[in-house]
Amino acid sequence: MQAVPNIDLLITNCTLLPDPGEAPLPAPAFIAVANGQIARLGPMSACPTRVSGTVLDGQGQLAMPGLINGHCHAPMTLFRGLADDLDLASWLHDHIFPAEAKSVCPEMVVWCAKLAAAEMLLSGTTTVADGYFFEDEVARACAETGLRCVAAQAVLDFPAPGAADPKQNIEVAARFLERWQGRDPLITPAIFAHSPYTCGNDTLRRAKALARAHGVPLFIHAAETRTEHSLIAEPLASTSLGHLSALGILDRDTVCVHCVWADEDDLDLLAQEGASVISCPQSNAKLASGRAPLAAMIDRRMRIGLGTDGAASNNNLDLFREMDFVAKVHKVRPNEPTAVPAREALRMATHGGAEAIGLGGGLGTLAPGAPADLLLLDLHPLWLQPFHSTNLLAYSGCASAVRSVMVNGQLVVHNRRVLTLDLKEACAHVRRLAKGSPP
Amino acid sequence: MQAVPNIDLLITNCTLLPDPGEAPLPAPAFIAVANGQIARLGPMSACPTRVSGTVLDGQGQLAMPGLINGHCHAPMTLFRGLADDLDLASWLHDHIFPAEAKSVCPEMVVWCAKLAAAEMLLSGTTTVADGYFFEDEVARACAETGLRCVAAQAVLDFPAPGAADPKQNIEVAARFLERWQGRDPLITPAIFAHSPYTCGNDTLRRAKALARAHGVPLFIHAAETRTEHSLIAEPLASTSLGHLSALGILDRDTVCVHCVWADEDDLDLLAQEGASVISCPQSNAKLASGRAPLAAMIDRRMRIGLGTDGAASNNNLDLFREMDFVAKVHKVRPNEPTAVPAREALRMATHGGAEAIGLGGGLGTLAPGAPADLLLLDLHPLWLQPFHSTNLLAYSGCASAVRSVMVNGQLVVHNRRVLTLDLKEACAHVRRLAKGSPP
Ligand SMILES: [Zn+2]
Ligand SMILES: [Zn+2]
Repeated sequence: MQAVPNIDLLITNCTLLPDPGEAPLPAPAFIAVANGQIARLGPMSACPTRVSGTVLDGQGQLAMPGLINGHCHAPMTLFRGLADDLDLASWLHDHIFPAEAKSVCPEMVVWCAKLAAAEMLLSGTTTVADGYFFEDEVARACAETGLRCVAAQAVLDFPAPGAADPKQNIEVAARFLERWQGRDPLITPAIFAHSPYTCGNDTLRRAKALARAHGVPLFIHAAETRTEHSLIAEPLASTSLGHLSALGILDRDTVCVHCVWADEDDLDLLAQEGASVISCPQSNAKLASGRAPLAAMIDRRMRIGLGTDGAASNNNLDLFREMDFVAKVHKVRPNEPTAVPAREALRMATHGGAEAIGLGGGLGTLAPGAPADLLLLDLHPLWLQPFHSTNLLAYSGCASAVRSVMVNGQLVVHNRRVLTLDLKEACAHVRRLAKGSPP
Repeated sequence: MQAVPNIDLLITNCTLLPDPGEAPLPAPAFIAVANGQIARLGPMSACPTRVSGTVLDGQGQLAMPGLINGHCHAPMTLFRGLADDLDLASWLHDHIFPAEAKSVCPEMVVWCAKLAAAEMLLSGTTTVADGYFFEDEVARACAETGLRCVAAQAVLDFPAPGAADPKQNIEVAARFLERWQGRDPLITPAIFAHSPYTCGNDTLRRAKALARAHGVPLFIHAAETRTEHSLIAEPLASTSLGHLSALGILDRDTVCVHCVWADEDDLDLLAQEGASVISCPQSNAKLASGRAPLAAMIDRRMRIGLGTDGAASNNNLDLFREMDFVAKVHKVRPNEPTAVPAREALRMATHGGAEAIGLGGGLGTLAPGAPADLLLLDLHPLWLQPFHSTNLLAYSGCASAVRSVMVNGQLVVHNRRVLTLDLKEACAHVRRLAKGSPP
């Protein structure tokens, strides 16, 4: 036992997440946090005894890395359940675009992003990669609520909220990057080129050049639907991903979201050029877009993560449910019982996802020097009894078991309560804003 | 306003579940319960004022029918997460059967069934159709915990726990029916013929004759896996369901569980003979068995319900998650965005499921004269904000929103606590029993 004076927060008596597929370690452990990082961790026998900061009793709780939501449109929480059981084209053009045209403004973005941030924190997500209009407000909402965020300003060749003149979209994005680079430890600014079918070649090239100039990631929806596949394939004699590759868009700082329609050649391209993929299996299922070839991506050792997409196509932002779904939906076709095992789902939702969205430094792991982004999960709920292996976190984990959440060393959820936001106020604002949205 | 003296329990100020797909009614409502049934319900303006029984304030809560779990093996909760990411044959023969051989005894069945019953009640399930060995203990556990149960004693042509001599299996089942018919308002006894590949023709015919003689349902796993399909198809030149039909097993009191491999002819057979189907989409996905042709069953107006199957292949007993999964997994194939809409998932999990397992009398509906099996769902959780339509119950409902549950007019869960069971004691027993199960 030794005194370590510069510890800001000490978690005692917790169970550390063991290696994938293994049962939790019986030995109680400690995690010491200093300067926003995990300073030390180990068995309670080596726990520092005199600590200046807060001590959190982790008895009966599993400490695990915070979850990484690799793709979200946080403000679309306003449209949760607004239009269900439709295909993507009808959902987007007949329902979501009109609702957005009527509702999207900075006030809507900030309140709905705050509610989304709280929903994510309460379900164990500590980092989100978000893309939307008025992304300043999303970044601000996440920073205030204490959620780590890769905030990507949307770019597309149509008049959009916050950029009535599409010609100004790249300028709007450039100013966004300038405002946010180096400003807040929780916020990494980025660019979100909406898709190859809403951004022309020039816009795509300019968006990527801007991202490169600032050293930030470029996110893009790609190969999402059969409609997109046809839209691109016929005029260009190319797949969506082939098209992006030909434009020079794909590199290690490009994050391709969805990739449902990626064929073998597309996967080889992605693997060669090092672009990462975020899969949003529930959104892809609900909108009948299909199922991304994740097993083939895993075989190619590609960087892949998991995203909820917006609440409007999910209809929640709970990565535990996403892990459960991804591990099951890929087994549905008979004789693929080992496809996307639970441990891969867990990897995609933690350090795999962190790497896929360009955040390194050990984010998504419990290791000394890694950012102190972690959660304490109550092991008592009946749906976690008995606890034969950590696969259960994927197949039966849920938001209600999340007891405490820390981001960047700051406690943001404690005893299932968000400490950083007045939830009643945020809900009241969102309900008021929802009444103004089209039925 | 009028006094209605013979009301046992009155729920005030709640929101009644509106018609499928609609937004909840803004008007606060009451539900009056007497003699285990819903006596009256309506707007608060018509609420009885003087009541002898308990009054429950339903402010901010949605009253909806309790959920119907159409297929479960409650005691298998012991094997939750014991073996994941395997095909059904290996899962069953290499892991589950050996674990069962070592662990299954009346003590194991009663404690694991109690834990399962509590898990179901806490996630809003008020009725389960269960099938296992030592089903007396399951029935007893459910009766004590207050969960309505169609308890089906297992029959198969192998030595099984509680019936070492397979020749005695029908006798064991017969005595089970005699013990439980008319004994407890919550318990309906039934027969569970395990499957066409574990029960020979004679056993199947005798099991069905026994069920007919007692006027109880016969449950059977049928057309679950490709392996079963091959096992039956080659020697018999028939499908599993064709085989059951030829044996005279299919009628309105036969419940076929799974039916993943039902072809068009099988579906016509099922529809003609009136047999019902319980689909267990998460179990079928996790074990890589496939996906039942639910859309074709809906088209044929068949009686279909939803089941979790046992916790070992799910890995929980939460019907909200099952609704979410079934509504999404059937849309995965592109261009089927309207397949199994949320409202169908909700129907399957409520009155549709009740009809499929042979329980009528309005079970699964909120209507005067129906059994008072209902739940109060908290509408405040962030993942239900805003609440544009009841589709959200399928796509984002979860156990943690279940506040109070009533079965047969008795309050069994209140403020998220099970009133009928010492959970700590049950969990301790299950953890102790789990340590004795093979790794
Ligand atoms: Zn998206
Ligand atoms: Zn079963």
